[in-house]
Amino acid sequence: MAKLAVPSMFSMRHFLVLSLALNVSLILRTTYYESEEGSKRFCLKKKMMADADSEREGHFIHKARLAISTTFSLVNSTRSGGKERVINLDHGDPTMYERFWRLRGDKTTIIIPGWQSMSYLSDTSNICWFLEAEFAKEVVRLHKVVGNAVTEGRHIVVGTGSSQLILAALYALSSPDAHEPISVVSAAPYYSSYPSMADYQKSGLYKWAGDAESFDKEGPYIELVTSPNNPDGFRRRSMVNRSQGLLIHDLAYYWPQYTPISSPSDHDLTLFTVSKSTGHAGMRIGWALVKDKEVAKKMTKFIELNTIGVSKDSQLRAAKVLKAVSDSCEQENSKNEESFFKYSYKLMAQRWKQLREVVEAGELFTLPQFSPAFCTFFGQEMDPQPAFMWLKCEGDIEDCESFLRGHKVLTRSGKHFGASPKYVRISMLDTDETFIQLIDRLLAIQERE
Amino acid sequence: MAKLAVPSMFSMRHFLVLSLALNVSLILRTTYYESEEGSKRFCLKKKMMADADSEREGHFIHKARLAISTTFSLVNSTRSGGKERVINLDHGDPTMYERFWRLRGDKTTIIIPGWQSMSYLSDTSNICWFLEAEFAKEVVRLHKVVGNAVTEGRHIVVGTGSSQLILAALYALSSPDAHEPISVVSAAPYYSSYPSMADYQKSGLYKWAGDAESFDKEGPYIELVTSPNNPDGFRRRSMVNRSQGLLIHDLAYYWPQYTPISSPSDHDLTLFTVSKSTGHAGMRIGWALVKDKEVAKKMTKFIELNTIGVSKDSQLRAAKVLKAVSDSCEQENSKNEESFFKYSYKLMAQRWKQLREVVEAGELFTLPQFSPAFCTFFGQEMDPQPAFMWLKCEGDIEDCESFLRGHKVLTRSGKHFGASPKYVRISMLDTDETFIQLIDRLLAIQERE
Repeated sequence: MAKLAVPSMFSMRHFLVLSLALNVSLILRTTYYESEEGSKRFCLKKKMMADADSEREGHFIHKARLAISTTFSLVNSTRSGGKERVINLDHGDPTMYERFWRLRGDKTTIIIPGWQSMSYLSDTSNICWFLEAEFAKEVVRLHKVVGNAVTEGRHIVVGTGSSQLILAALYALSSPDAHEPISVVSAAPYYSSYPSMADYQKSGLYKWAGDAESFDKEGPYIELVTSPNNPDGFRRRSMVNRSQGLLIHDLAYYWPQYTPISSPSDHDLTLFTVSKSTGHAGMRIGWALVKDKEVAKKMTKFIELNTIGVSKDSQLRAAKVLKAVSDSCEQENSKNEESFFKYSYKLMAQRWKQLREVVEAGELFTLPQFSPAFCTFFGQEMDPQPAFMWLKCEGDIEDCESFLRGHKVLTRSGKHFGASPKYVRISMLDTDETFIQLIDRLLAIQERE
Repeated sequence: MAKLAVPSMFSMRHFLVLSLALNVSLILRTTYYESEEGSKRFCLKKKMMADADSEREGHFIHKARLAISTTFSLVNSTRSGGKERVINLDHGDPTMYERFWRLRGDKTTIIIPGWQSMSYLSDTSNICWFLEAEFAKEVVRLHKVVGNAVTEGRHIVVGTGSSQLILAALYALSSPDAHEPISVVSAAPYYSSYPSMADYQKSGLYKWAGDAESFDKEGPYIELVTSPNNPDGFRRRSMVNRSQGLLIHDLAYYWPQYTPISSPSDHDLTLFTVSKSTGHAGMRIGWALVKDKEVAKKMTKFIELNTIGVSKDSQLRAAKVLKAVSDSCEQENSKNEESFFKYSYKLMAQRWKQLREVVEAGELFTLPQFSPAFCTFFGQEMDPQPAFMWLKCEGDIEDCESFLRGHKVLTRSGKHFGASPKYVRISMLDTDETFIQLIDRLLAIQERE
C-alpha cells in the first residue's frame, strides 16, 4: 500500500481534527445562541448575558475546550474496541444546510391553515395548471439575482423533484409514433440513476443507450447534459453534438456555492431543484425552464398522468425559502448578514480545503483538479467546489468502493456512473459531525495502509 | 324532447333554489361567526352579541332575505342576456370540504420551520424509507376509528397521490422478465384515467386490456377494482376472478360520507387518498396498504426512481388533518361538535336529495338507484351517496356530454369510462355556489327542452 508522504501523520491528523472541532464548537455556540423562535431567543439572550456576567471569557474557553474534548471522544468512541461507526455517504443528502436555516430562525417558517390549498388546481390559465404563482415568481427572481439562467421566453413546469422532470422531459421529447424508442445518452461518468430512470418502465418511447462519447447511432437522440457534473464536478457541454440531438440540461449544481457562475444558462430545456440549491430535499420540488410551448404542455401532461400535479404545500414552502435566499443576497450589504450563497460557499471552501489537505498528505487517494474561473455572482475569481468528491484509489486498489467499505465508509462505486471501480463518489453535503468523522477516517486509513 | 312530469315546474324550481339559498345563508352565517383564529373568534362573538342586543331575530331574517336575494341575482345574472356562466364539473375537485376545515379554524394549521424535514430520508429502517412516522401512525389510527380497512400485517407505502401508487402497483405486480406486458383490466364503467395511466409510457411491463367483463385472455392479469366505483358509485368486487389475477383495490371513496361501511377491507393491495377522504387534493398524498413485503419493496423502488420519495411537508400536514378527523370522531359526543364524517354525510345527503328531486321532476335525465345498507361507522342503515353523479340522458339524446355542453355545463362523457355517451359523470364535491348553479341549470334545461 502507498506510503505516507509526511512522517508526522499522527500529529497532523490530530491538528486537523482539532481545528475542525474548534470550528464546530464555535458554530455550535452560534447556533445555540441564535436559536430559532423569537421567544426562545429572548431567554437565550438573557442566559448569554448571565454567562458573560458570571464567567466572562473563561467560561467560553472552558466551553470550547469541552466541545473539543467531546468531539475527540466522539471521534475516538467510534473506533474504540476496533468498532468503528459506519459512515454512510452513498447518498447526496444535503443536511449540511440545516444549520443555515436554523440560524435564520422563523424567517422561513411557513404556516398553512387546514382549509388552504385544497383544490387540485392552481392556475388554469397557465400551461402548467398546478404551478403555484408565488413559487413561479420566486424562481424567476432567484435566477435574476444569481444570474444563472435566462427565464424570459420560458415556460416554468414544476415537478416532484427534478427526477420527475427528467422523466417528464424524456416523455415530452420522444414520439409515440416512432418505430423504435429514442436513444438516451449522457457522457460518462454520468449520474448513476440515469440508466435505471430511462429503463425501469421498459418504455417503448425512450431507451438508455449509454455513454454519449461512444454513441454513434444515426437518427434522433436525447442527451442529458449535467453541469457541473454529478459525480465529478466538471462543467459540461453536449458531447454528441449532432443535428438530431435533443438536449436536457440538468443544472442542479449550477449555483455559486458549487461552481463559478459564468453566464446565465440559455438552453431549450433546463432543470433545477431545491434539493441541491437550498438543501430542502424533503420538499421534493424541482422546476424546468422550457422554451418550446408544446414540450411544456407534454411535460405537464406527464405530471398530470403521473401524480396529478405537485404538492402545493411544498411549492408554497419552496417559494418562501427561495424568497429568503434572494432577500439574503440583496440585503447582504445593508443588514450585515451573510447571504445564503456566501455562507454556503465558505463552508464548502473550508471542507474542500480540509479534504485536499488530507488526501494530499498521503498517496493512497487522488481528487480531480479544477481551474478557478470568474464568478459573475461573487464578482471575483473562484474555485469550483463540487457537492461530491470523485475520489480515486491509486496503486493496486482496483475496487475503491469495497476498499472503503472495509473501513466502514459507504460510498458509490464508479461502475454505477459508467466509470472505473477505482473511483467512488462521496457526498460533501452531510452534517459537520459526519464530515469530521470522514476526514478522520480517511486519515486513519492512510495511517494504517 | 322529454316533457316535464309536473306542470308547476317554474314554481318548483324557484322553491328549490329558494330552499338551497336559505341553506347557504345559514351556512354562511355559521361560517362567518365560527371563523378560524381564536382572536378573531372573540371579536366575532362580541359582534354577534351586539347584533343580538340591537336587532334580535329581525336582523337575522333581514340578513337571510338578503342572502336569498343575492343568491337569486347571482343565479339570474349568470343567465342575463342569454349569457350563462360555464359550470365546469368535469373534474372531481373536492372543494366542498373547504368550509368544514375553515370552521375548524387553527386546529389543523401546520407550522413548518425552514430547517425542518430537509433530508431525503424519513426512516431508513422502514421498507418505505421516505414514509413519515407521524403520517403512518395517523393512517393506522383513522382506519381503526372508521373501521374501513385492516392495517395489521400491512406495509404502508406513501405516494404522491394515489395516482402514483397505481403506477407503483402496476410496476410492482408486473415482471421485467415476462415475454409480454401483463394485461391491465377494470370493469366498465371504469375510472377514465386508467387506460392512459397504463399506456402513456408504452411500457413493456403492463398494458391496458380494457373492460374486465369481456376479458378472456389466458394467463396473468392485473385487475383494478374501484369500490365504490368512479364514476357510477356502485360497490364492486373483482370481475374476472381467475387464479392468475393480481388485484389492486382502489378504495378512494370507501369512506362513510359516500357509502355505508360494511366491514374493514382486507385485500392484498389497497389504495386510499386524502383527496377524496378529507378533500385535500392539493397535498397530493395517498397511501397503500400492502400485504406482501416484496410488493411493498418494489412499490417503494418505483417511487424512488420516479420522484425520490414524497413531499415531507404534505405528509406532515396530512398527518395533522387525519388526526383532526379521528379526533372529531372520538370527541363527537363529549364536545358536542359534529365529526368530519357526520358533517360531510349530511352535506352529501342534502345534495343528493336536491339532485334527485330535480332529476325526478322531469323525464330528461335518470340517476343510478342504490340500496341502503347497514353502516358500521354510523351504526345504522344509510344510503350510498357517491362523489359523482352518473347521469343518463334519456330519449333521443345520444351524446349527453355535448347536450350539456350546449347548456354550458362541462361534464365527462361516458365514452371515457368505457360506457355509452348517453352517460356523463358530474362532480358532486364542488362548492355550494357551483352546486346551486348546477341544480338551477338542470331545472332550466328541463324547462326549456
